[in-house]
Amino acid sequence: MQSPDSILSRIASPADLKGLTDEQLERLADEMRSELIDVVGRRAAHFASNLGVVELALALHLTFDFSRDRLIWDTGHQIYPHKLITGRAARLHTIRTKGGLMGYPNPAESPYDLFMTGHAGCAPSTALGLKLGDELAGRPDARSVAVIGDGAFPSGIVFEALNHAGGAASKLLVVLNDNKMSICPPVGGFANAMDRARMSPTYSDWNKRLKSLLPTIPLVGEAADRWLRQVKDALKATFQNGMLFEELGFTYLGPIDGHDLKALRSYLEKVQTMPGPVLLHVLTNKGHGFEPAVKDPVKFHAPNPFKRVAGGLVPLKVASRQTYTDAVAAALHDACGRDPKVAVLTAAMCEGNKLQKIRESFPGQFFDVGICEGHAVALAAGMAKAGAKPVVDVYSTFLQRSFDQIFQEVALQNQPVVFCLDRAGLVGADGPTHHGCFDLAYMRIFPNMVVAAPGDHLDVAPMLDFALGYDGPVSLRYPRANLEVVERDLQPIELGRAEVIEWETDGMIIACGAVLGACVRAAGVLRERHGLNVGVVNARFVKPLDGATIGKAIEEAAFVLTVEEGCLNGGFGSAVLEAANEAGLPTRHVGRAGLPDRFVLHAERDEQLAEVGLDVEGLVARALELARAVGLEPAEAVPAALNGRSRLEAGAAAVVAAAPGEN
Amino acid sequence: MQSPDSILSRIASPADLKGLTDEQLERLADEMRSELIDVVGRRAAHFASNLGVVELALALHLTFDFSRDRLIWDTGHQIYPHKLITGRAARLHTIRTKGGLMGYPNPAESPYDLFMTGHAGCAPSTALGLKLGDELAGRPDARSVAVIGDGAFPSGIVFEALNHAGGAASKLLVVLNDNKMSICPPVGGFANAMDRARMSPTYSDWNKRLKSLLPTIPLVGEAADRWLRQVKDALKATFQNGMLFEELGFTYLGPIDGHDLKALRSYLEKVQTMPGPVLLHVLTNKGHGFEPAVKDPVKFHAPNPFKRVAGGLVPLKVASRQTYTDAVAAALHDACGRDPKVAVLTAAMCEGNKLQKIRESFPGQFFDVGICEGHAVALAAGMAKAGAKPVVDVYSTFLQRSFDQIFQEVALQNQPVVFCLDRAGLVGADGPTHHGCFDLAYMRIFPNMVVAAPGDHLDVAPMLDFALGYDGPVSLRYPRANLEVVERDLQPIELGRAEVIEWETDGMIIACGAVLGACVRAAGVLRERHGLNVGVVNARFVKPLDGATIGKAIEEAAFVLTVEEGCLNGGFGSAVLEAANEAGLPTRHVGRAGLPDRFVLHAERDEQLAEVGLDVEGLVARALELARAVGLEPAEAVPAALNGRSRLEAGAAAVVAAAPGEN
Repeated sequence: MQSPDSILSRIASPADLKGLTDEQLERLADEMRSELIDVVGRRAAHFASNLGVVELALALHLTFDFSRDRLIWDTGHQIYPHKLITGRAARLHTIRTKGGLMGYPNPAESPYDLFMTGHAGCAPSTALGLKLGDELAGRPDARSVAVIGDGAFPSGIVFEALNHAGGAASKLLVVLNDNKMSICPPVGGFANAMDRARMSPTYSDWNKRLKSLLPTIPLVGEAADRWLRQVKDALKATFQNGMLFEELGFTYLGPIDGHDLKALRSYLEKVQTMPGPVLLHVLTNKGHGFEPAVKDPVKFHAPNPFKRVAGGLVPLKVASRQTYTDAVAAALHDACGRDPKVAVLTAAMCEGNKLQKIRESFPGQFFDVGICEGHAVALAAGMAKAGAKPVVDVYSTFLQRSFDQIFQEVALQNQPVVFCLDRAGLVGADGPTHHGCFDLAYMRIFPNMVVAAPGDHLDVAPMLDFALGYDGPVSLRYPRANLEVVERDLQPIELGRAEVIEWETDGMIIACGAVLGACVRAAGVLRERHGLNVGVVNARFVKPLDGATIGKAIEEAAFVLTVEEGCLNGGFGSAVLEAANEAGLPTRHVGRAGLPDRFVLHAERDEQLAEVGLDVEGLVARALELARAVGLEPAEAVPAALNGRSRLEAGAAAVVAAAPGEN
Repeated sequence: MQSPDSILSRIASPADLKGLTDEQLERLADEMRSELIDVVGRRAAHFASNLGVVELALALHLTFDFSRDRLIWDTGHQIYPHKLITGRAARLHTIRTKGGLMGYPNPAESPYDLFMTGHAGCAPSTALGLKLGDELAGRPDARSVAVIGDGAFPSGIVFEALNHAGGAASKLLVVLNDNKMSICPPVGGFANAMDRARMSPTYSDWNKRLKSLLPTIPLVGEAADRWLRQVKDALKATFQNGMLFEELGFTYLGPIDGHDLKALRSYLEKVQTMPGPVLLHVLTNKGHGFEPAVKDPVKFHAPNPFKRVAGGLVPLKVASRQTYTDAVAAALHDACGRDPKVAVLTAAMCEGNKLQKIRESFPGQFFDVGICEGHAVALAAGMAKAGAKPVVDVYSTFLQRSFDQIFQEVALQNQPVVFCLDRAGLVGADGPTHHGCFDLAYMRIFPNMVVAAPGDHLDVAPMLDFALGYDGPVSLRYPRANLEVVERDLQPIELGRAEVIEWETDGMIIACGAVLGACVRAAGVLRERHGLNVGVVNARFVKPLDGATIGKAIEEAAFVLTVEEGCLNGGFGSAVLEAANEAGLPTRHVGRAGLPDRFVLHAERDEQLAEVGLDVEGLVARALELARAVGLEPAEAVPAALNGRSRLEAGAAAVVAAAPGEN
């Protein structure tokens, strides 16, 4: 925590920076870094990237006045230093906790935060939009800045925005925060171009040399003037290494040292005088100022909490259980080993989706295309057409980037592409930009698409096998959660077939995906505490829906509750209502539990589940409501012994976390 | 039509090209062009772009063997010459008609068509995917080619694919078919770079000059070797004008004359010998060989049918009625005039959305960003945040490209961006890539989003005014159809309020959007022919839904039919089922009409509407089915006089097309 006599404690807003001396600014940078290490070290949070932009944040706020000018951080997980100097230093320790600061920019926290940016690449577009909007609204002097990492740069939308800004010669500053890697090792031609750029002397050095050299080049032929101009342009571009940007109409400056506050300020001042759009290439070190993070920036991208002690680092908490991510990665690893035609594609989520082992074991079957989800899906469609078996493994929320490719390249062509949607549902501390709320609703609108979700650990591998064997697109989704096992006589995976865990007639819970465990527990509570005999179905498929099984539940049970960790609008429960309607079945006794029509803020995942009524207690409450509405009279609390115990209770008791290493 | 002794008539497959002499090939090109002019002249179809790629199609099929190699046309509306020489010449006259050839590549027609490509930009991704897939599937020798227009090039996904291919040095040929324009005048820095490229001599000329020059450059200083290499690279790049591509790892060749068959073949042969990915820059003339199209390629992009006669061109059919597109463009024009903060954004659909007048009258308020829907939406979000009033006006199907930006940049931030979704519903001859089936279903899953649809012409301007005045995102959708007016006491637009056209208790039809006219007609038929008193509601809003009005209909009417020109999965009718379920209302007497869970092929729009039961007869049939299911006994045919005539019948009679020029 900051001491009361620190400089940082006196920075209530960026205006307070302006009177500081160079020396004070350097002390401030140290204080900020120390604050980040102390506070962020206490909980899982984005770390290394924030240490890397301390000076950049200071320089930007010293040069611009963002109470009027516009600043977008892309992505926003590098926002912490900015938060420290925009009046939120005292609350930084609350970051990523319920009711605390958001781990991304949050307009509700501060007028200095303009957009929640959790998906990478849109900052140049929104910054240009802000610039053009300010012009339309009569504020032509407001300046606009986007800070974007080299990892986000290959995103198509960045190119779209640079192309637009360059062609229109709009006044816009794009700061390329080049920390030499995205979350995963960088890929693509752009990364190679950046490598070349980084090896070169800085612009000013070369510019001097260029000036001394040029007049010595002999000119021949008729187009001498043009020739000279072209040579100059070409040489300049080579020295600048920013030809890619220059071609698009940007003026390229850099690369410059992003930890040299004076140099940063001087370049930013210079930018003010330049017409048209400028790209400033800044080199920063992820983890700057904290040796362990500099050495292993991937690990320290968003590390588990740790503590500095004399002997080194002590982890404060260790993730001890295996997750759905682990299980899917293991099943994919097996699939790659069994069939050389299986290809695993991801979009910079090699780490997040735990695909490193696949990358190592099967480099020829692994494709990380960078933060380019649209390309990943179209690429997969091409592979499938050629007879390979591509699996696109990304976060549910990021797959939204490829909605149109899922439509045109996959569903319309009925290509056998498998989608593994990680982090489907609520994700905890990352908050609303990262929840995977919508995939069930949007995947099921596409003809040909099979939409499925494993109910527990036991479903994962067989469902993936089913998907790889199916001759059409299949989408699988699973949450950011530890694995559970629901004990039962496991039924094989069949297209459009649900699995009955227990059949009862007071009520039936139709569980979509890994909410199954909570549903089984809720059924146990309903029996033990409230004397209700409630069965559970593991839906497995959202599309095609098992109309027979679900229809039978609707016909036989006094009430039916559908449960999904996805948006209620158009989601699984909605599909159940549609199917019932088409089958001529009544639905007044059917209730739906799922994500509400609002954005759920950052908190622990358990807190979020409770907030939306998807924890066991919430499901029990919802079931009781339905039971009462249909005239059942659940007891307030009945001892378990008074009721006949069924297999379900054994099942409920048997919802256990899989042991680590079980995969 | 081709004469029986033409060369074209003897080309049953590309293999038949191989024995032809140069002279025969030139005659064949002439025959193909003539065939295109004659056949395409008979109906509205993509025209100029097809005339431009005759030689390119020939050269590609002469050099490659696409029974094994892979070819993707992007977008596919330039596919006609390819269809002519892949066994479909005799059927070209059926193009874009029901049961005839598709106006885009269609894998169901020919193994030479790999992907239906109606949305631009994905060809480099799918072509690379095919290449990688062929490698995984044990066919490493298969070559892969993407042909992509300069208009599609600024699409972000093109950059994503080039970046990936360049970085991986994958063997891939991308042909940049540069016809100097997309559908609308080109925009952006890329277009400017292309302009520079086109003015330059071709590569081979410069290369010679470069070789003669380089040794004369004096070398000084310590890094002479590196210096020389950099100078060489830089000069080469300048002469090649392909630095943008070279930076990404591609070898750039061109620009070359796309109508010089020999040159094309020679370059394509050369490409075979080159390692890594190659970009071949080909200059073509849209409309080549047909003077009127060369002179006005925008008009001849997809002209109305015409006929060549001695005196010039005679149009065969003229679109005589005003469309929803016209009405929205006129209302937007008014809005721009009233409020300088209104900004109209489109993505290369200036022509399609009839925004030329806005571009001319209010150039400072008009933004055509090219085929970059993701950027357009993020840009609009920035503008809205700055206080402007942006309207994104694109086709429903193309807005799918910006799904994630609608989520993160607009809905999550609750930014007041207005979406005008043109061509929502079935679009006729363009077929499945162009239908706007999904917008109702996907727009309503986003929190904060208001989803609305004008019921007729009278709703258009007030609804747009409502949207511009609303402090949050609003989506409006309307079909590719002539305007209709449903006579009534027009109610003002209020958030979440439906408009009752006529209230009856035998049945109520809840019409979502411009299906209103057909619903009113169907209600008239149900009364006149079948003696059923059926009312109609103009829903206006899908979200928030008018639960009170629709709930009352569900309570009071013997049956209820929801009607939408959108997918039934998760769409408007599904929202009605959800709302009824939440209100505890029964829904067994509720039926839904809409688009089925399959792709609807190309045909006339009226044919498509009939096929899916959304024409008046289809709606009548569906209503009768529902009526019978609830125990009503509709007459087979009752004279109108036997029933009391209501205002609805007057309304039904009064569904008229608005006169041209009424706007």
